[in-house]
Amino acid sequence: MNGDTVLIASELVELSAELGQRLHAYGWRVATAESLTGGALTAALTAVAGSSEYVAGGLVAYQTEQKTRQLEVPAELIERYGVVSAEVASAMVCGVARRFATDCALAVTGVAGPTPSEDHQAVGTVWVASCLRGDVRPLCYAFGEVGRDRVRFATVKAALRQLCDQIDAEFS
Amino acid sequence: MNGDTVLIASELVELSAELGQRLHAYGWRVATAESLTGGALTAALTAVAGSSEYVAGGLVAYQTEQKTRQLEVPAELIERYGVVSAEVASAMVCGVARRFATDCALAVTGVAGPTPSEDHQAVGTVWVASCLRGDVRPLCYAFGEVGRDRVRFATVKAALRQLCDQIDAEFS
Repeated sequence: MNGDTVLIASELVELSAELGQRLHAYGWRVATAESLTGGALTAALTAVAGSSEYVAGGLVAYQTEQKTRQLEVPAELIERYGVVSAEVASAMVCGVARRFATDCALAVTGVAGPTPSEDHQAVGTVWVASCLRGDVRPLCYAFGEVGRDRVRFATVKAALRQLCDQIDAEFS
Repeated sequence: MNGDTVLIASELVELSAELGQRLHAYGWRVATAESLTGGALTAALTAVAGSSEYVAGGLVAYQTEQKTRQLEVPAELIERYGVVSAEVASAMVCGVARRFATDCALAVTGVAGPTPSEDHQAVGTVWVASCLRGDVRPLCYAFGEVGRDRVRFATVKAALRQLCDQIDAEFS
């Protein structure tokens, strides 16, 4: 396969299908709130045929002010903890679950690079918050300075896996 | 390059950078409203370093009801013309430009497949609406039954090009 003709890499489609099977099995819907991945997480979720059954939609809040405007993340929270933080990721995931009225949600915020964030967070630092019926789990990842595309790729992968794991843990 | 390690194909990143140069030059911001591409258009736009300067964000309204709930597309319009139509694409692009208060916007709605839409639109039928300071242009594309990933890929490419062309036409 050539990277120039593939929209979503097969590895991400497979992982997305695994999550889809779980959502389908429980009859749940998912929504996303994305910053650094800029829509790629939702694009991976919707790469699977039939995903409109369980993917409600998503919000890409790329500019910081849009996190407040579109996802109701309090500006004070951003000011206090920084845009790449457990607090902001958690507020984003709650905001999008409310907006789309879904059982599950995923939110990602991080530093794709090439330069560190304004508040000096290192390139590759990412917070992913997953939400399952009100239970919010923020997790931090450090992917390092591996390049913008790879940080975003790794973030999509981690987010899909995180929600799979949360669902599995709930029912183990 | 291997499709399994690349998030956004270089062809789309290059096209996105071309659009970015124009937006940067005029000081404009862009927002997106996506259906069939599920976030991939915004992911392509944000693949370029520094794109947070001109990409405000986007809304993935994957399920039909979300086009009404999130983008204020009148339900009557969807019922009358179908979700894959010039009318709905135009309403989506106006809705998202309003929501993010941007100068430019792009909206895509179409049938990625593998099965035709509920209202019997053929696989590969796509409407892209571009908007430049209130001037809305809906264009129809027929990509054929080339597979889900390729229809979505072609749609992202067409959308990026369409806004580039509209900007160029405005200033030619």
